[in-house]
Amino acid sequence: MLNIETKLFEIEVLREFSTRVFLHFECPKEDAEQAADVLACADLRGIDSHGVARLHCYFELLSARVINPKPKIEIVHSTMSTATVDGDNGLGLVVGPRANRIAMDIAEKAGSGWVSVRNTNHFGIAGYYVLEALERDLIGWAMTNSTKAVAPLWGGERMLGTNPLAVGFPGKHEPPIVIDMATSAVTLGKIEMARRKGNRIPSGWAIDKEGGATTKPEDMFAGGALLPLGSDSEHGGHKGYCLAVMVDMLSCVLSGANWGPFAPPFTLRSEIQIPTRSVGKGIGHFFGAMRIDGFIDADSFKTQVDDYIRVFRATKPAPGTNGPLIPGDPEREAERERREKGVPLVSAVIEELRDISSKTGVPFD
Amino acid sequence: MLNIETKLFEIEVLREFSTRVFLHFECPKEDAEQAADVLACADLRGIDSHGVARLHCYFELLSARVINPKPKIEIVHSTMSTATVDGDNGLGLVVGPRANRIAMDIAEKAGSGWVSVRNTNHFGIAGYYVLEALERDLIGWAMTNSTKAVAPLWGGERMLGTNPLAVGFPGKHEPPIVIDMATSAVTLGKIEMARRKGNRIPSGWAIDKEGGATTKPEDMFAGGALLPLGSDSEHGGHKGYCLAVMVDMLSCVLSGANWGPFAPPFTLRSEIQIPTRSVGKGIGHFFGAMRIDGFIDADSFKTQVDDYIRVFRATKPAPGTNGPLIPGDPEREAERERREKGVPLVSAVIEELRDISSKTGVPFD
Repeated sequence: MLNIETKLFEIEVLREFSTRVFLHFECPKEDAEQAADVLACADLRGIDSHGVARLHCYFELLSARVINPKPKIEIVHSTMSTATVDGDNGLGLVVGPRANRIAMDIAEKAGSGWVSVRNTNHFGIAGYYVLEALERDLIGWAMTNSTKAVAPLWGGERMLGTNPLAVGFPGKHEPPIVIDMATSAVTLGKIEMARRKGNRIPSGWAIDKEGGATTKPEDMFAGGALLPLGSDSEHGGHKGYCLAVMVDMLSCVLSGANWGPFAPPFTLRSEIQIPTRSVGKGIGHFFGAMRIDGFIDADSFKTQVDDYIRVFRATKPAPGTNGPLIPGDPEREAERERREKGVPLVSAVIEELRDISSKTGVPFD
Repeated sequence: MLNIETKLFEIEVLREFSTRVFLHFECPKEDAEQAADVLACADLRGIDSHGVARLHCYFELLSARVINPKPKIEIVHSTMSTATVDGDNGLGLVVGPRANRIAMDIAEKAGSGWVSVRNTNHFGIAGYYVLEALERDLIGWAMTNSTKAVAPLWGGERMLGTNPLAVGFPGKHEPPIVIDMATSAVTLGKIEMARRKGNRIPSGWAIDKEGGATTKPEDMFAGGALLPLGSDSEHGGHKGYCLAVMVDMLSCVLSGANWGPFAPPFTLRSEIQIPTRSVGKGIGHFFGAMRIDGFIDADSFKTQVDDYIRVFRATKPAPGTNGPLIPGDPEREAERERREKGVPLVSAVIEELRDISSKTGVPFD
């Protein structure tokens, strides 16, 4: 097993660096801080693949002027409880939070608010948006499509993004229940990690370029694909595929963004093919917010959530485990540790940040 | 392999029988027809476990006066876009359709409508409600909790129902995309089928009463549990668990129904334990409806759905398959065949229907 060396960074150092990089591209100050906040949230919560490790992607796309640093984000259509937002090809890290606030504003007036977003880009972790809703005492939903990486069940090629889905419910004395999950069996990051370590991957994670089952991580990168949650037909692979389609419909078809295999890539690196066809504008997101007291007394709801959490923590553990976690536990634990000790970055990421530093003149490290 | 003998019945014969059984218990005519329609829909669409095969459960519960045949279904709370409905302990087959119509009525006015339902009972297939929404040109959502059968990831006992989730999106010339999925790895029905045939079940479907992995179907019935979609931690079992929790929160905690292990059982058979604790009223459902033109021009949405379907049908097939299906394909195919040839019932179900017939005096067969 390969030992991956890491170095610890204070979150405020990373946040400051990201902010200044976005400012370098003339993003307005508020937008730069917003974008950096989404990345910092991922780094704190232990979703390493979506924090500053992704800054080089945003950097590349902003450098190449593929992303608009000063978008005019507009509501293009609305009803009492719904809206469609055009992100003007801005950073998803800016468009996402704005559209999510629109959903929350609508919810506060109408009981619930639902916003589909087109002409946007990668929005970071879906969980961020749900946490924002929890701050306003709302039940929050967030979804997005992404560059194709996943095969539908019985498909032999990439047709869907890892299309994540997040939902959050507030507790009273207990922490909130925060669900944030890709609709694929695993993330690309886990397969990348196996490749770096020279390990095999379990069956049910990926297929090779012919569409056949594989346990070699390199097969997935050489034209293969991830499998949907459930993996195969025997274990419900059609269900993961269905969830990815649901996210695609709500985020893209409903807003007028590029769906399925037509989502634009999130990097300019040469191994990623740019789709030859466009069926909409940019990628798409979907946000929802619901007032708890649109349904039930908010205090009694939160008391029940507390009870729910305690009942589930008291579940009889499966042999060899400490029993079930509550959705959001691992991320809360990571945040507690990382706020105290710092965020561990692997050397490859540190090199990329240094490279961005040398190209932008923003000091790092 | 055991050959399961079946006999074919015209759907109208089954519908008429169910209607008359519900009338026997003094359900109002409209309610009896409504309830029979939900069961007929399951039988037509090939969801055999949720059609007339379940009539004996409703029969038992109505006989024992555990379910109220003449419920006063009421909206107990509402905003512009949300409502909570109390089903007065009626048949879920009656309360569900009523609450779903409330969600659709709200959506037509406010752009979207979201209804959480308490004090209700088993509502049949979730897909039924989505099909109803499609009839009114709406995007429909339906969820429900159910009697505990599923262990959370790393849990060694039943804590959650199979908590299904359904969503539907209309096409223009193509049929709609209809997603209807339990959040467990497999249904109880598949394990029951393996038991009858004397087959082993694949690993990843169930655990035994100690919480350990098993491939013996009888272990699951002898105090074991189903596993959530994703099965184990390596394949995303936490995601299926999260989805089941999401359905529970929206259907039960938000309405004031019994969540998690406290859902009342759907049968009076002695092997099912009645929960000793109650945390709400009955079980819970959650319905949503969204106007397409609350987001985008409805015609262009449907044209994109058609395009989506054609693009996904053209996916390169995985070796040994005919390529991906579109969500809803298997059910549509079953409906086409069963409308023409009839609904196949196994002898055990026919016996149960004859038993109901002899006890109610409603003629059958």
